[in-house]
Amino acid sequence: MRKPKKLLNDPNNVRQEVMQGLFYAYNGKLTTIDEYCAVYGNHISSDQVVVVSGGGSGHEPTFAGFIGKGGIDGCALGEVFTSPSPDQIIELTKSIEKGKGVLFLYGNYSGDGMNFDISAEILAEENIVTKTIKGTDDIASAPLSRISDRRGVAGIMFLYKIAGAAAQFEKYDLEKLYQVVSKANANVRTIGVALDGCALPQSNNFNFELDENEIEIGIGIHGEAGLRRQKMASSDEVVKEMIDHLCDDLPYVKGDQVCVLINNLGSLSNTELLVATRKVGIELNARGIISHDIVVGHYCTSLEMSGFSISLMKLDDELKHLYDLPCQTFGWRK
Amino acid sequence: MRKPKKLLNDPNNVRQEVMQGLFYAYNGKLTTIDEYCAVYGNHISSDQVVVVSGGGSGHEPTFAGFIGKGGIDGCALGEVFTSPSPDQIIELTKSIEKGKGVLFLYGNYSGDGMNFDISAEILAEENIVTKTIKGTDDIASAPLSRISDRRGVAGIMFLYKIAGAAAQFEKYDLEKLYQVVSKANANVRTIGVALDGCALPQSNNFNFELDENEIEIGIGIHGEAGLRRQKMASSDEVVKEMIDHLCDDLPYVKGDQVCVLINNLGSLSNTELLVATRKVGIELNARGIISHDIVVGHYCTSLEMSGFSISLMKLDDELKHLYDLPCQTFGWRK
Repeated sequence: MRKPKKLLNDPNNVRQEVMQGLFYAYNGKLTTIDEYCAVYGNHISSDQVVVVSGGGSGHEPTFAGFIGKGGIDGCALGEVFTSPSPDQIIELTKSIEKGKGVLFLYGNYSGDGMNFDISAEILAEENIVTKTIKGTDDIASAPLSRISDRRGVAGIMFLYKIAGAAAQFEKYDLEKLYQVVSKANANVRTIGVALDGCALPQSNNFNFELDENEIEIGIGIHGEAGLRRQKMASSDEVVKEMIDHLCDDLPYVKGDQVCVLINNLGSLSNTELLVATRKVGIELNARGIISHDIVVGHYCTSLEMSGFSISLMKLDDELKHLYDLPCQTFGWRK
Repeated sequence: MRKPKKLLNDPNNVRQEVMQGLFYAYNGKLTTIDEYCAVYGNHISSDQVVVVSGGGSGHEPTFAGFIGKGGIDGCALGEVFTSPSPDQIIELTKSIEKGKGVLFLYGNYSGDGMNFDISAEILAEENIVTKTIKGTDDIASAPLSRISDRRGVAGIMFLYKIAGAAAQFEKYDLEKLYQVVSKANANVRTIGVALDGCALPQSNNFNFELDENEIEIGIGIHGEAGLRRQKMASSDEVVKEMIDHLCDDLPYVKGDQVCVLINNLGSLSNTELLVATRKVGIELNARGIISHDIVVGHYCTSLEMSGFSISLMKLDDELKHLYDLPCQTFGWRK
């Protein structure tokens, strides 16, 4: 069996070293607390609701890489594919909240949900008001009838963008912020495919493996099982099916505007990603769906998983305005 | 033997489909000519020298992904790891030059050099003036005494940045542009390492393979042999050696300012890249070298090669001013 090959130091220090790397990559624009396990941006103003996220490491630049002007305000980072602890979330939130309330915004996973909920309860006792939105964009993870059970994947980036713009630039209050980010969440859909799995640093065993001639449609970002495994198909066939699924789940009419995210899950070549991008363009054009903006690259990865995802966010005037505001973060600049 | 696994259509159409993907990713900001094998930006003004690049596909977002405001003006794209033809280069150049001269700027490879030189001769007959700069940043490809023989790798991105800013925003004339980009080239150094090779789409065989416990120090972006192969080491050991090589080749004194590019060659996880980034920061700090800016991610890839490179550009006031001007391209936004 093939063994994964990684360039690391002590695999037990991955979270901390990733955070230190990110700190250096931000070149002085982050403040770290709690021994590099939570960070926040130096852009936060005193009259804004703060947006706090968190999640496991291994998805870089998600989650902490979207801190900054026009992005999220702070992030608690867990061990690889593991939720951050309530201690981290609470310390972070108390360090940055400005008395205007806090939006917790993270992907829908049970560990994260539990730890953010505990944090919210404890913070409430200190009169810090929080509201919570969980990203639920992965259409392969549960049927539409149970949409709130769906997992959060790459589409969280669109939610960060909308939340950051609304909180920082337009000074939405907590209730209004909650409403607009909920709307964005309801308008975002993602589907991913994988050609091969990834290995957690500590075990260094693949989380799943596919045969030489196999592809998995609907993969989750921790290797959660998708819709099915099938014989390898052409890029065009795979992309067409992905767009079909996305447009079945949230139907579009001709002239609808969307933002498009074509996200590399890790080790797929950018060459293959651009070949897929071509077909996304063809399929959206064929349906009369207008791309307001397109983002292609590594945004929400899964260590070295080979595969990619497509996310669409349907726009209305409010979302479009917020999306078009500037964004200066490590993982996304606009 | 392990077989590469790729998500493509006809492997003979990779160049064309990558270009079409890029065209879609630019969402209307590119004009294509010559059946998607050359493109230029819609930002070009009539009073500027134009900067034209070219090279093989397979390195996305290099080269064509750096077209745009504050980047290069046009690019001719060859088949995977293959030079574009003189026909492409000539047609592109004639489509965009404004009578102020043309800077050819590309990586130092014999095929590219031959085809750009032929193009320059033919264009000269039509009174189109060109000057040529070849990126020569790969310190592992030839000794310092033969610096002009060195290959061009990820450091070309810094040259694009400087050239684009000088030509578009500061309206440097051709001679002044040539001088400043030559200076930038003389100030850029890169070294790469690989954990594993990549496979060309048409043959689908790895260009090189490393043993389970092997790493190659000084790799080229087409898999050209580096300084040596050795037993796998820790990330910290590898990065320290890379920084040592860079600082031996172009010595620094305390207080020198640099731009830093930590470039993923393809399939290394961003998690590992950030662990390496941490040590780059530690090593530069230890030498008193000041990071003016740091860029981390996929900029000049080698299909799905596993590895990364570090590039440093030493700054003076002119380079710093040009570097700090805006950049709005597919592959790099600032």
